[in-house]
Amino acid sequence: MYGAGDVRVETVPDPILNQPTDAIVRIVRACVCGSDLHPFHDMPAGAVGTPMGHEFLGVVEEVGSEVRTLAPGDFVIAPFAWSDGTCDFCREGLQTSCRHGGFWAGNGIGGGQAEAIRVPQADGTLVKIPAGVDAALYPSLLTLSDVYGTGYHAAVRGRVTARTTVTVIGDGAVGLMAVLSARQLGAERIILMGRHTSRTDLGREFGATDVVAARGEEGIALVRELTGGDGTHVVLEAVGHLPAYEQAVGVVRAGGVISRVGVPQYEQAPVGFGSLFGPNVTLTGGPAPVRAYIDRLLPGVLDGSVQPGKVFDRTVSLSETPEGYRLMDSREALKVLIAP
Amino acid sequence: MYGAGDVRVETVPDPILNQPTDAIVRIVRACVCGSDLHPFHDMPAGAVGTPMGHEFLGVVEEVGSEVRTLAPGDFVIAPFAWSDGTCDFCREGLQTSCRHGGFWAGNGIGGGQAEAIRVPQADGTLVKIPAGVDAALYPSLLTLSDVYGTGYHAAVRGRVTARTTVTVIGDGAVGLMAVLSARQLGAERIILMGRHTSRTDLGREFGATDVVAARGEEGIALVRELTGGDGTHVVLEAVGHLPAYEQAVGVVRAGGVISRVGVPQYEQAPVGFGSLFGPNVTLTGGPAPVRAYIDRLLPGVLDGSVQPGKVFDRTVSLSETPEGYRLMDSREALKVLIAP
Repeated sequence: MYGAGDVRVETVPDPILNQPTDAIVRIVRACVCGSDLHPFHDMPAGAVGTPMGHEFLGVVEEVGSEVRTLAPGDFVIAPFAWSDGTCDFCREGLQTSCRHGGFWAGNGIGGGQAEAIRVPQADGTLVKIPAGVDAALYPSLLTLSDVYGTGYHAAVRGRVTARTTVTVIGDGAVGLMAVLSARQLGAERIILMGRHTSRTDLGREFGATDVVAARGEEGIALVRELTGGDGTHVVLEAVGHLPAYEQAVGVVRAGGVISRVGVPQYEQAPVGFGSLFGPNVTLTGGPAPVRAYIDRLLPGVLDGSVQPGKVFDRTVSLSETPEGYRLMDSREALKVLIAP
Repeated sequence: MYGAGDVRVETVPDPILNQPTDAIVRIVRACVCGSDLHPFHDMPAGAVGTPMGHEFLGVVEEVGSEVRTLAPGDFVIAPFAWSDGTCDFCREGLQTSCRHGGFWAGNGIGGGQAEAIRVPQADGTLVKIPAGVDAALYPSLLTLSDVYGTGYHAAVRGRVTARTTVTVIGDGAVGLMAVLSARQLGAERIILMGRHTSRTDLGREFGATDVVAARGEEGIALVRELTGGDGTHVVLEAVGHLPAYEQAVGVVRAGGVISRVGVPQYEQAPVGFGSLFGPNVTLTGGPAPVRAYIDRLLPGVLDGSVQPGKVFDRTVSLSETPEGYRLMDSREALKVLIAP
């Protein structure tokens, strides 16, 4: 990406092993993330491009001398953050704060929207998938790179159980994964706030019991009406813009939790007596340590009992990636798969 | 209180039973709260005074026809919020959001800095103390009205355990009670941020292992230094001003919790990627449902194993209450007891 709206497909040098803990992975599937749209909207134009993409499945081509758990030919999922898997944060399940970790597409590490990539801390980062998996499962497996684990993180941090009512704000891929995750954690009442019928229909399929298309004060009033005036115990905020935060404050029940996984496009927000403090509302969330959830979520994907891959409604080739951005930005596509 | 700095002791009509669920209580001990200092600083002057005080011990004088658990002569503790004890919020332990509850000193309910008071929802609100308790225990019992339960709420909401390191911001009575509570919940490392040696000394007695007198960036750097650069798992914020919030953000470990019980004197604060979101920090807290904690904390007070009453370092008579405000405001007193 060279700036807002300017995505180019270019030939760059092949990645090579740099550290003994690296692996080189040939990418089999990648995709465009809702968060890729933020720089697509506001990145200043520059002479040097930034590699893009942080979600991919691939086949290991080569491993460094210290890589122990992987070998060429292994089929792997990559989480959207790389991590050593051994530090205290990783052991606590907060791989996004790994002491030797980082994020794709920066600091000399490439992006996933590519043919191949160098993976740092390969043992800690990559998760092996059983050989011979049906290609029909690739889209669902790919959601474990980010959106499924991110939705699940929202629900886990929100402490969703069978006893909690839930509102999900946002009908993008992460919002829909938050619905699916809340259902998996037992929630029986899940209100999805979103305006795109095709998406909210998929949300119903994933477990939403109610859909509220209105936003702002009107949307808040409707959720309150659906919940006897109280709001829901948990709100999963999967948008990242300030109005979505304000909506979350408006629909959360006293004593409840707002769990954010939409990357905030604001720094300041209301947290005082009138918003969070007075009603003892908890604000939680952050970048999901999806690596922590893959082991738990993979079996359901492999046996087909959950089909998070339904969020992909378009597939493009690597050379068509710029068109993939356009399709997502214009809301013509919910989430775009890239098959290099 | 008639306005900032203007506290008067006046003769008003005796409280009378108004609802069948009311009780009339003769006040035995009351006190001035740190939160009473907020209106003492900025309340607009007016022709009509506002009753003050929300912490008291007393003796039941009279009960309404529907009061079942109390009788004249009972010695009781009043939490700083009154509540029915039966609604869903009360059953969940969030009495501050009771559907039929409220706060003292407003809406026709008097304040605790008085000779007597009408207590609404007496069955749900008041907690009976065994008859014949030694008067030496009154100060400690009185802390169960607010500051002890508030410090405990901070620690509970912060999920303090033996495995968590803790920073407490503020060396007022609530901050010191947060130290005591964190210790009771098992914390072995408790860093107290406060500038008043006499108070931080008491904090050490309550369980603080380290004291940091510096504030702002310097204070943050010192706490980071004490924790290998990481900050602490839990931060208990017992001040309520924005710089204390910013300090909390500065000293919390990634994945940790900031638990606020200082009433926020701000509405907007940083919550974006650079403060809470990026490091997956949780923000929690609010007005403490102290009623929920009295049963748990009372035994330790009665058997003398904890002595939260040490936060009282001055006693005044009811007529000296204005002087009590002055003493606390000027920091000459940590917390002022009122013996009517």
